[in-house]
Amino acid sequence: MSLNDTPRAMRLHIGLFGRRNSGKSSLINALTGQHVATVSDVPGTTTDPVYKSMEIHGIGPVVFIDTAGFDDSGSLGALRVERTRDAAKETDIALVLLSTGLDDGAGAAGNEDAFRWLEQLKRRGVPAISVISRIDESTAAASLAQVIEARTGERPVLVSAATGEGLAALRAEIARHLPEDYRARSITAEVCESGDAVLLVMPQDIQAPKGRLILPQVQTLRELLDRKCLVSCCTTDCLPAMLASMAKAPDLVITDSQAFRTVHALLPAGCRLTSFSVLFAAFKGDAPFFAESARLLRALPANAKILIAEACTHKPLREDIGRVKLPRLLKKVLGDAITVTVTAGRDFPEDLTPFDIVIHCGACMFNRAYVMSRVAACRSAHVPMTNYGMAIAALLGILDDVAIPGVD
Amino acid sequence: MSLNDTPRAMRLHIGLFGRRNSGKSSLINALTGQHVATVSDVPGTTTDPVYKSMEIHGIGPVVFIDTAGFDDSGSLGALRVERTRDAAKETDIALVLLSTGLDDGAGAAGNEDAFRWLEQLKRRGVPAISVISRIDESTAAASLAQVIEARTGERPVLVSAATGEGLAALRAEIARHLPEDYRARSITAEVCESGDAVLLVMPQDIQAPKGRLILPQVQTLRELLDRKCLVSCCTTDCLPAMLASMAKAPDLVITDSQAFRTVHALLPAGCRLTSFSVLFAAFKGDAPFFAESARLLRALPANAKILIAEACTHKPLREDIGRVKLPRLLKKVLGDAITVTVTAGRDFPEDLTPFDIVIHCGACMFNRAYVMSRVAACRSAHVPMTNYGMAIAALLGILDDVAIPGVD
Repeated sequence: MSLNDTPRAMRLHIGLFGRRNSGKSSLINALTGQHVATVSDVPGTTTDPVYKSMEIHGIGPVVFIDTAGFDDSGSLGALRVERTRDAAKETDIALVLLSTGLDDGAGAAGNEDAFRWLEQLKRRGVPAISVISRIDESTAAASLAQVIEARTGERPVLVSAATGEGLAALRAEIARHLPEDYRARSITAEVCESGDAVLLVMPQDIQAPKGRLILPQVQTLRELLDRKCLVSCCTTDCLPAMLASMAKAPDLVITDSQAFRTVHALLPAGCRLTSFSVLFAAFKGDAPFFAESARLLRALPANAKILIAEACTHKPLREDIGRVKLPRLLKKVLGDAITVTVTAGRDFPEDLTPFDIVIHCGACMFNRAYVMSRVAACRSAHVPMTNYGMAIAALLGILDDVAIPGVD
Repeated sequence: MSLNDTPRAMRLHIGLFGRRNSGKSSLINALTGQHVATVSDVPGTTTDPVYKSMEIHGIGPVVFIDTAGFDDSGSLGALRVERTRDAAKETDIALVLLSTGLDDGAGAAGNEDAFRWLEQLKRRGVPAISVISRIDESTAAASLAQVIEARTGERPVLVSAATGEGLAALRAEIARHLPEDYRARSITAEVCESGDAVLLVMPQDIQAPKGRLILPQVQTLRELLDRKCLVSCCTTDCLPAMLASMAKAPDLVITDSQAFRTVHALLPAGCRLTSFSVLFAAFKGDAPFFAESARLLRALPANAKILIAEACTHKPLREDIGRVKLPRLLKKVLGDAITVTVTAGRDFPEDLTPFDIVIHCGACMFNRAYVMSRVAACRSAHVPMTNYGMAIAALLGILDDVAIPGVD
């Protein structure tokens, strides 16, 4: 663990998919070991994918996801394959490995799984690169490449982890497949201008352990400094003194959503208001859909079924927002007849139709691809989905006063 | 890795020392597994100590250090024993394990190493608790306890990792040995009052990767918020605009030491100035000694030999402070005839006498005990030791204008 790493959820996620022994792990080792330093390894369990972080020159911080083989048939096989499907949900760019070692060397029979994965990934909008691995072990790579090109319309990249052949070409191909908005994505660009005075309200009482700030606060502050903003920070109780110390009112206040009511009441005229959670909802998810869904909250039926999805799997804190405070506020506004279900981490119901709405946390531990896979699941089940910050603002009746990136 | 962990260097370091098979690892597992969650494991290599972090109720965040046995005689034995000595340097509280299984069961012969360690640790001012482990495996614990009490004057704690007996007593004993100033230690208490307006100058250009702030900035900001200060943050180029936006001048400016010259020139009247590096020098080390040493810098001989000690082992950054900028400034002020040696991480010369001065980084990756072991080494070799921030201020001729905790 390095304290100076880029947070994993902000790295480009490159998933490797292929049969067992198609060379996924060796390829990651070759990519991470030969030309750059591996900055962290998080060993997987027998069922979990393994994440390896690194910097790729010209691309930036990435994380490789080493998945179980499609064809895993051990006692944990089904679970491992399920986790591989889950890894696909957070994949920004997929490398699908095909191999000449799987059948007669020239045909596609042993690679049918891989062709199916290529199709599925592309159907879901995930850029997928086909890779013929272990080319040093066989002379049949060229014929397999022709088969792949005939079936997919794209030339595969030929690599050998053992000799290093093709690795540079593969890195170039990854760079070519970068999502268009990958570099441009910003947390604060739509709610304030460069150079603006921005006040951050950051209550610290129950949130972060000794000596730390929670990740959304760090990421937001860092981006504001990079954007040459003048940033002020205080806890909720110090807000009146902070405002009084400023020669003029700030252009924007970003608050912890839990302090929305207090901050809204103290907001100077002409100053915009938003929350860390709202900004991350837009950064990681679909802000217009979340805002539209939040507006439905107060009109839910008395017996509404509400799913709260929390990304963190930490032991619940005293006055935990997802497990205690938000359910309490929901019941106060909507009545005691509602049913609130809380899920944590990667648990998320397959069948969302029993729920009237999903309320998701800011997802600082998930990447955008993963949150968007949940948005897609909600949309396809016709279930509204919103976020902690927008839900709190809607329940307090102040949503129209909150600046939401991409909305209005 | 959890992004919400307390930084390791801020945890109470509890080192376990004992012969091989004295039960160190089982005891750590019992302490971390039974009553609390292990929040992170950093697996060691064959030579490095293993760190396990946890929270102990009533004490707070701690890290256990599992060391190699005193008696390790494998091919890497000597190196492992050396690393164990190094681990003792960062130990705030030591548990020294003695066992009845090492000789005839009642005597001290097999435990002579442990008695030597107990003495050495106490001589160096490290609180050490003697522990008889594996008491479920023998009936001779009581007689060994008498031997220990006779030799050390203190009753050992009797524990069994297998049955859990004695674990609560051991935790109480650890709490009783807490260093007096452990809870009270503060980064900023001596340079500003609660409620003060504090401006942080945090250039971000070359320091932290995307989405992050470096640890001293995070820790300082967090503490200032906890102390109800009104905190403003900007990059160096925005300082004039930041000052203009405030109704009155801040009480204190804390800058990155690399911006000392610029910030000093812009400092409003009546406002105190210090740097993150200076604050951490005092938090982790011996500020009066560092300040006194810094004052010697400009009087060093033309052929002075200077050791720069950097705690981070990161790949050198472009314009790295320890490896590029500070040596350049030293040569500019002291002349090209000086010799600058740079060490990183745990490398630190056994023999310091060839050097005229040691300049240490802010040591955000080390704990206070470890930095103080280096202070002790410098003092006993009669070599001055200072810190990046104080050295820069001294070389710029502004040291007298810098607020240093514990010095005025």
